[in-house]
Amino acid sequence: MLMIIQRAENLKRLGADIFAAQGLMREKAKFLAETLVEANLTGHDSHGVSYFVTYSDRISKGFIDIEADPAVVKETPSTALVDGHWAPGQITARFLIELAVEKAKKQAVSAIGAYNCSHIGRVGYYTNWAAQRGVVAMMFVNVGSPSVTVYGGEGRVFGTNPFSAAVPTREAKPYLLDYATSVVAAGKLSIARARHERIPANWTRDKDGNPTDDPAAYREGGWLLPFGEHKGYCLQLLMELLGAVLTGSRTGTDPNRDPPSPNGVLAVAIDPEAFVGLDELRREADAVISQVKQVKPEPGRRVLVPGEPEWESKELRLKEGIPIPEETWKQIVNLAEELGVVVEG
Amino acid sequence: MLMIIQRAENLKRLGADIFAAQGLMREKAKFLAETLVEANLTGHDSHGVSYFVTYSDRISKGFIDIEADPAVVKETPSTALVDGHWAPGQITARFLIELAVEKAKKQAVSAIGAYNCSHIGRVGYYTNWAAQRGVVAMMFVNVGSPSVTVYGGEGRVFGTNPFSAAVPTREAKPYLLDYATSVVAAGKLSIARARHERIPANWTRDKDGNPTDDPAAYREGGWLLPFGEHKGYCLQLLMELLGAVLTGSRTGTDPNRDPPSPNGVLAVAIDPEAFVGLDELRREADAVISQVKQVKPEPGRRVLVPGEPEWESKELRLKEGIPIPEETWKQIVNLAEELGVVVEG
Repeated sequence: MLMIIQRAENLKRLGADIFAAQGLMREKAKFLAETLVEANLTGHDSHGVSYFVTYSDRISKGFIDIEADPAVVKETPSTALVDGHWAPGQITARFLIELAVEKAKKQAVSAIGAYNCSHIGRVGYYTNWAAQRGVVAMMFVNVGSPSVTVYGGEGRVFGTNPFSAAVPTREAKPYLLDYATSVVAAGKLSIARARHERIPANWTRDKDGNPTDDPAAYREGGWLLPFGEHKGYCLQLLMELLGAVLTGSRTGTDPNRDPPSPNGVLAVAIDPEAFVGLDELRREADAVISQVKQVKPEPGRRVLVPGEPEWESKELRLKEGIPIPEETWKQIVNLAEELGVVVEG
Repeated sequence: MLMIIQRAENLKRLGADIFAAQGLMREKAKFLAETLVEANLTGHDSHGVSYFVTYSDRISKGFIDIEADPAVVKETPSTALVDGHWAPGQITARFLIELAVEKAKKQAVSAIGAYNCSHIGRVGYYTNWAAQRGVVAMMFVNVGSPSVTVYGGEGRVFGTNPFSAAVPTREAKPYLLDYATSVVAAGKLSIARARHERIPANWTRDKDGNPTDDPAAYREGGWLLPFGEHKGYCLQLLMELLGAVLTGSRTGTDPNRDPPSPNGVLAVAIDPEAFVGLDELRREADAVISQVKQVKPEPGRRVLVPGEPEWESKELRLKEGIPIPEETWKQIVNLAEELGVVVEG
């Protein structure tokens, strides 16, 4: 597949221009672009600049309300429930994680939920942001458009329901867990399709429930599988209960409801000062991580720390640029031209 | 393997008598026995009455201090850090979950950590207890005696580091996630050994790092594997960071340190009234669960809800009794006789 290499800074400017051209306030447009390009930088291309096009389509259809702002509808000193008002999901998620960190620093622990929340993008962006500010953060997220079956079942039941957790470390690179509770996110299938690659048999079933190595089988009525058998499935359902049910967000097995792919979000933040303290946490977290790095790898394998692949990718792509499939790049350029946005680079 | 069938009530009385005979206050002795027998009732024999013997041994060696009580050493309205003082772990865990529920009901969300905490047994006991009182509860636990490798690595690095979460439902049977972050807990290997069964190749490696179906290979210097490849490994490490590092509990890769198998524990509790409210949470959680129960199963499979196997086992074993391997039963009877405790049934 032909790849177009673009600098992160160019892509951020382009994305901000694209969203601003549709009427989104410049500061918000910049933040959307920043989070999406950050996903590419960290190697999560499934959550990257292709969303310039997806979100623009949702804006034009009225699914994302560029004039809306999230607002607290229920509050205690340590909790809040937020109505996202279908503002861009990144704006709601930023509002939510900032509130979580602020309340955790005042009250030692906080929990913030959000409903009517558009797609928030890569969840690790927000937990990582919190951990860099010295707070332990977790996000329990449902995706209100089903694509994944349950353990032992058939058909699309839940979304890819991601979970993320970040813990401060002494280096500015927090421990970062950030993944779909399906074996893979749906975006990985699109990438495999675009690259004409076969996929492992534990990723999906085809529309008749058969194992398949064809990445197109999912789009043709198949479904994704939860990771780790019953254990991943338990986590998938926990995301549904905490991300969606507790916050009043959308659940249900109908894949065709609008808006597409909303997120129900619960963030929990903990101030380490209420426990061993931030300095001690950072020091001992680093000690545990360096212990992991000293583990002898299995022959031909590497032992990685959660977050490390992301940091490695970011370092590389900041230097060498971000590879974008030609087809995706063409769609972005077309969109920019329609909006009268100048494409550099 | 010959199994001895015992009634739950008899076992609870016997366990309470055994622990009381060693000097533990009757009420605490009853609680220890109650949690261990409840593990058998719910089908988790690896965490059941065999611990009558294990804990008695640890008491006699001074690893568990039957006169100690846990105490709060650091506190805010919504958090506490607890020194377990090496009291029986169940007593510390009960103290911790009661405090978590109490603080969550007052402050909407709470986080309680514990260190110097003896083995607490089946973690789901406590989260389930909280959910039955209308509170969402999670417990992040490390086991301070390594038995599990990391993803892509060799040798024993972390404990089986369990995670548990429970969410209230309308029926008195909460959603319950409760598992080791290894593919299986070490107790499952002992059971397979006792039954002379082979085990699946993804459970352990032998001491040379080779896949094996021999349940004895673990005891002979092998190690367990984390579940779900890198995703389960991320969770395993999260338990280490939240259960142990944040609370100041024991970490490290030396498997021979005393006391054996301490737990570092972090509990997070959330009052649903700060979000959609308990009634709405229960109603909608039930709706999601009944939706799962309507999913078409794969041929020859069943779709289960997290917690359902436990409830099914409990119903059956309350009626028909708890099967105990003859060898385990003999050890319990010997212990009782040494302590002058009368064994009925």
